[in-house]
Amino acid sequence: MPQSSINKSADHILALSGGVGGAKLALGLSKLLAPQQLSIVANTADDFEHLGLSISPDLDTVMYTLAGINNQQQGWGLAGESWNAMTALKTLGAESWFNLGDRDLATHLSRSQMLAKGDSLSTITRYLCSQLGVSHAVIPMSDDPVRTRLQTDQGNLAFQEYFVREQCRPAISDYCFEGIEQAQPANDFIELLGSERLKAIIICPSNPFVSVQPILALPGVRQAMKASRAPVIAISPIVAGIAIKGPAAKMMAELGMPATATAVAQYYGDLLDGFVLDESDHDLAETISTAQLQVHCTASIMTTLEERIALASKVLSFAQQLIDNSDRF
Amino acid sequence: MPQSSINKSADHILALSGGVGGAKLALGLSKLLAPQQLSIVANTADDFEHLGLSISPDLDTVMYTLAGINNQQQGWGLAGESWNAMTALKTLGAESWFNLGDRDLATHLSRSQMLAKGDSLSTITRYLCSQLGVSHAVIPMSDDPVRTRLQTDQGNLAFQEYFVREQCRPAISDYCFEGIEQAQPANDFIELLGSERLKAIIICPSNPFVSVQPILALPGVRQAMKASRAPVIAISPIVAGIAIKGPAAKMMAELGMPATATAVAQYYGDLLDGFVLDESDHDLAETISTAQLQVHCTASIMTTLEERIALASKVLSFAQQLIDNSDRF
Repeated sequence: MPQSSINKSADHILALSGGVGGAKLALGLSKLLAPQQLSIVANTADDFEHLGLSISPDLDTVMYTLAGINNQQQGWGLAGESWNAMTALKTLGAESWFNLGDRDLATHLSRSQMLAKGDSLSTITRYLCSQLGVSHAVIPMSDDPVRTRLQTDQGNLAFQEYFVREQCRPAISDYCFEGIEQAQPANDFIELLGSERLKAIIICPSNPFVSVQPILALPGVRQAMKASRAPVIAISPIVAGIAIKGPAAKMMAELGMPATATAVAQYYGDLLDGFVLDESDHDLAETISTAQLQVHCTASIMTTLEERIALASKVLSFAQQLIDNSDRF
Repeated sequence: MPQSSINKSADHILALSGGVGGAKLALGLSKLLAPQQLSIVANTADDFEHLGLSISPDLDTVMYTLAGINNQQQGWGLAGESWNAMTALKTLGAESWFNLGDRDLATHLSRSQMLAKGDSLSTITRYLCSQLGVSHAVIPMSDDPVRTRLQTDQGNLAFQEYFVREQCRPAISDYCFEGIEQAQPANDFIELLGSERLKAIIICPSNPFVSVQPILALPGVRQAMKASRAPVIAISPIVAGIAIKGPAAKMMAELGMPATATAVAQYYGDLLDGFVLDESDHDLAETISTAQLQVHCTASIMTTLEERIALASKVLSFAQQLIDNSDRF
């Protein structure tokens, strides 16, 4: 009999997430796990300051998705959003390449004001989540500013300049996370990594380079993940050589690696105990699996809520299986 | 023949204004005078910082009114405004006593961002006006922060706390303009006061205590107005013992003076060369007029645009009459 079981109410699952893709799996997990059983750590390296506001796109996507108020068609922002402030900002000649909905503005205004008062991003996120009725913990990776910058054929760009303003068109030759050496992982995050309650760490199907890597690159995080007895499981964001959302596949090609799930698994390297592959990539399973890395094939494209819950359920079962079959966990 | 005539294109009129009432007369003046003939200096002592934004209610009222985009029914803000950000701010638990429309938010966001970049309020106002198609000069009284504070039976209140949050209910015993001693009048304002082009200074029918007095109390302004050869004309905001808009009459009673046009004229004292009285107060004319102060009675309630233009026209004629009949100007 395994020592640990994810069914125990004291057991805890930690999900590491970027924006849309990660938030979908986080939502699935939130439908299966009680609030005290799940924490989602979100990337904040794509945060930026714009029009005097502090904007945290990935945090907001996770928060809005868990609150059930996200715009599913658009993939970002709020459902039923209006754009009257943005229209007026354009009239006033303000920068308009980053669309801010009227309701979404309220989030950025609240966050910016609380940051100016000295509250930490963790505290602010906890507060905003509670106001929006999100009961699972959403944790920014760090309360310190970390900013992804990309070296491209169009010059050095901040992440949102590349992602939104330039629509991911520039070719990337390198990237870095400004401020990462000075940043500390958020208290709740690092505490959870050291907790006996932690039963699995799930790396959501987010961009490995610019969504997950900033979280892993925070001082002490990789070590704490390695030291944890919880298995680390990544879900491939690359399916059949294509990124389900965003520029991951394009970036891989530009960075000189094949745009395959295999390359994703290799990128995470020995951090992983388990890797979830889409069933369409089942022929890659044999190449990827090693004595230290088990591979699970399943349907991983999450178009509907049912598919999000189904994938979350498969990932949790896979985690349980890893725990059951190894004395390492 | 008088030396000066307001008809000359090089002649200039300066209007001192608070919010709604002042903006109505400023609009009337703007319909009669070319952009190079009229400047409106607006009170900024009711400016405040709220939700992390720098808000200038009187400046915005003047600007929106001259742009023809103000909400006339409401008396403040923009016509056809929506309130989606405000609704979302309430959901997020933000302070909600000061209503901010979605389009109005764009103004505050733009202003706040430009202030943070180091632009002066004068520069910002000029820019916002140009974007909104306002061609007459709208000038903040000062680029330095001045903040009206009111001593009331409900404690010491910032102006907007008194005016909006408490709906003018507290009784006022005293008030002051924080920062006034350190503040300088805006460059364009003080230059205009010393200009030969200046043919008349019009004190709009705004609250004498909290809208006009901050402008007059700026270091050097009273002296420059006295030194100018342009006649100074005030339009009474009190008609038949009632303030047309706002708490002026209530404040007068609380401050121990009769709520009459006579008391307004006495309050401005020897600064005035002319005083415009509503025709319903014509019996006060004799008491108010002196050898130094001429009084003009006319219909001064401005409900329609035609009435705004008519009063502006009467005030300009009265100014011309003062210039024509005195060798002081």
